[in-house]
Amino acid sequence: MYDFPPLQNDLLLRAARGEDTPRTPVWMMRQAGRYLPEYRALRAGESFFKVCRTPALAAEVTLQPIERFDLDAAIIFSDILVVPQAMGMEVRMEKGEGPVFPEPLRQPDDLDRLLTPDVSTELGYVFDALTAVRRALAGRVPLIGFCGGPWTLMAYMVEGAGSKQFAQARSWLHRYPLAAHELLRCLTDILADYLIRQVEAGAQVVQVFDSWAGLLGPREFATFSLPYLRDLAHRFKQAHPEAPCIVFARGAHHALKALADTEYDVIGLDWTMDPVAARKKTGHKTLQGNLDPAVLFAKPSTIRAEVRRMLEAFGPRRHIANLGHGMHPNHDPAHARIFVDAVHEFSETMRAPE
Amino acid sequence: MYDFPPLQNDLLLRAARGEDTPRTPVWMMRQAGRYLPEYRALRAGESFFKVCRTPALAAEVTLQPIERFDLDAAIIFSDILVVPQAMGMEVRMEKGEGPVFPEPLRQPDDLDRLLTPDVSTELGYVFDALTAVRRALAGRVPLIGFCGGPWTLMAYMVEGAGSKQFAQARSWLHRYPLAAHELLRCLTDILADYLIRQVEAGAQVVQVFDSWAGLLGPREFATFSLPYLRDLAHRFKQAHPEAPCIVFARGAHHALKALADTEYDVIGLDWTMDPVAARKKTGHKTLQGNLDPAVLFAKPSTIRAEVRRMLEAFGPRRHIANLGHGMHPNHDPAHARIFVDAVHEFSETMRAPE
Repeated sequence: MYDFPPLQNDLLLRAARGEDTPRTPVWMMRQAGRYLPEYRALRAGESFFKVCRTPALAAEVTLQPIERFDLDAAIIFSDILVVPQAMGMEVRMEKGEGPVFPEPLRQPDDLDRLLTPDVSTELGYVFDALTAVRRALAGRVPLIGFCGGPWTLMAYMVEGAGSKQFAQARSWLHRYPLAAHELLRCLTDILADYLIRQVEAGAQVVQVFDSWAGLLGPREFATFSLPYLRDLAHRFKQAHPEAPCIVFARGAHHALKALADTEYDVIGLDWTMDPVAARKKTGHKTLQGNLDPAVLFAKPSTIRAEVRRMLEAFGPRRHIANLGHGMHPNHDPAHARIFVDAVHEFSETMRAPE
Repeated sequence: MYDFPPLQNDLLLRAARGEDTPRTPVWMMRQAGRYLPEYRALRAGESFFKVCRTPALAAEVTLQPIERFDLDAAIIFSDILVVPQAMGMEVRMEKGEGPVFPEPLRQPDDLDRLLTPDVSTELGYVFDALTAVRRALAGRVPLIGFCGGPWTLMAYMVEGAGSKQFAQARSWLHRYPLAAHELLRCLTDILADYLIRQVEAGAQVVQVFDSWAGLLGPREFATFSLPYLRDLAHRFKQAHPEAPCIVFARGAHHALKALADTEYDVIGLDWTMDPVAARKKTGHKTLQGNLDPAVLFAKPSTIRAEVRRMLEAFGPRRHIANLGHGMHPNHDPAHARIFVDAVHEFSETMRAPE
């Protein structure tokens, strides 16, 4: 382990553990990204994955929103698909289209093409970026590491690209259930190692993005996603019981109770989930979310009113404020600032003695 | 009104009204479509909208699955976007891409471009197709008419194409809420007239597809979709109290109770909704759905097992069996037959005295 400077703003860690905080911590999914002019400037000369693979560039991008806004956490600039890359799959980031796998997995036999990577070397560039960011942060805010959920990675690896329905990937679950479980198990092993090593490299919190959980019906989710998410949290917490672990299973509205029964410390909610109903289902877990990112297109007074409503719905404890989905490239950075500042302002007021 | 032959199979109408039936009625969303070789043969020479606009062709396509499978309803072959077309918007169906509007609505001023159509003439081809199908069915099964939900049509008209996030359309709701309500109101007026006239032309049941309801958070849905859906049902039932009216608000998992409080007779469920939980929220409403269409990629024994599980979850009353989303072009017609036949077989057995 490295010797890093002490943490000055530990609001997010305390909220994740269910402790009282003087204000609600806030960060934004995709807070480093195309809506920021300084990100677009840096990306002008470099491909997406080149930035991911160059620790100095990934660190610079990670820090861009931290320099700009009063955020309570940084999240490492990377991509969930670096793991399939490390397993030997080619992934291209096509402009305006998102990720494309020229040779997706089409048959169970294709699993033979996958490598079992030595995570410490194959994904060493991520660990180097984490260490660089952690040093550069100098304790200002905690650093979040992340990975994709096993089902979500499988969905991309089989489908070959983003898709509205992911029909290929979903048909795999029903055509080749044994091969699906084999792939999901293999991904979970790699992801557990990957998350554990992210903390050793400098991450203080980790988040698992099961971005395509919502494609699955309740029984499919319980069969092909939840067991692997559960195991991932278990293995992570065995290694790092002190580091908070967040799960964001977008669209899995039916699974909040089941997710609360895992070792994740924090359950992320997408913008379609009602915070009050979610509280009832998740007991003492800390919740993260869930302002509709589309609200950031509204005028400042509307953004502030919606932030206040969100904070009141979650209450002052066990809440990490965030959007219910990532920042959109068309968002105005000035509106992101209004969101962040309104969370701090209103959440402090809510805690003030009357 | 026309003088049509009497209906022989009224299972769907009786189930919609909550009456006992000897077996569970079944149909499939997109049952007429690209997974059928006879559909692909007919479409080889004609554009998608040409088929929609030619009553003889639309009627032929509508009847294709009825000739092939033991279905309990026909649904008119058409598209929800014929309404924006009638309002003066150009819509192209691009191969592999879905619908594209070359000139979407970008600003509130663009609403001035929209026409208020004389539905009886502008959409006369739909009514002619309904009448032709109703005659050709000769009472075999009831005929379902349909339209898109106001929000879903607005989403396409503003976005200009299908999209994962519909960021343009969702930003409209927050940037231009008054213009959004104006557009939604105008669409609702046209759609009410359109649905009412579909019954006069031969439809015996209607379904409203709010396919993009799931893009909206609970408060947005309650503001921009639900009031218009509610009004649509009210006006339809005022005109045709005897004709069952189905709503399918895909992804609106948070709104089942609210939808049950409207005048829709039947609530459609997508495949992510748990039937038992949905029953608790919807009281005495008939439910429609919701086998995951991906299950049709599985082997026959799996399809049959999943159908049985679905039927047991819904119970023998107040259920119209369907998929939880449309048929996929890659589906095998033989597997569609297994689905339809298994619904009949198991649902009869479930009702047999022990």
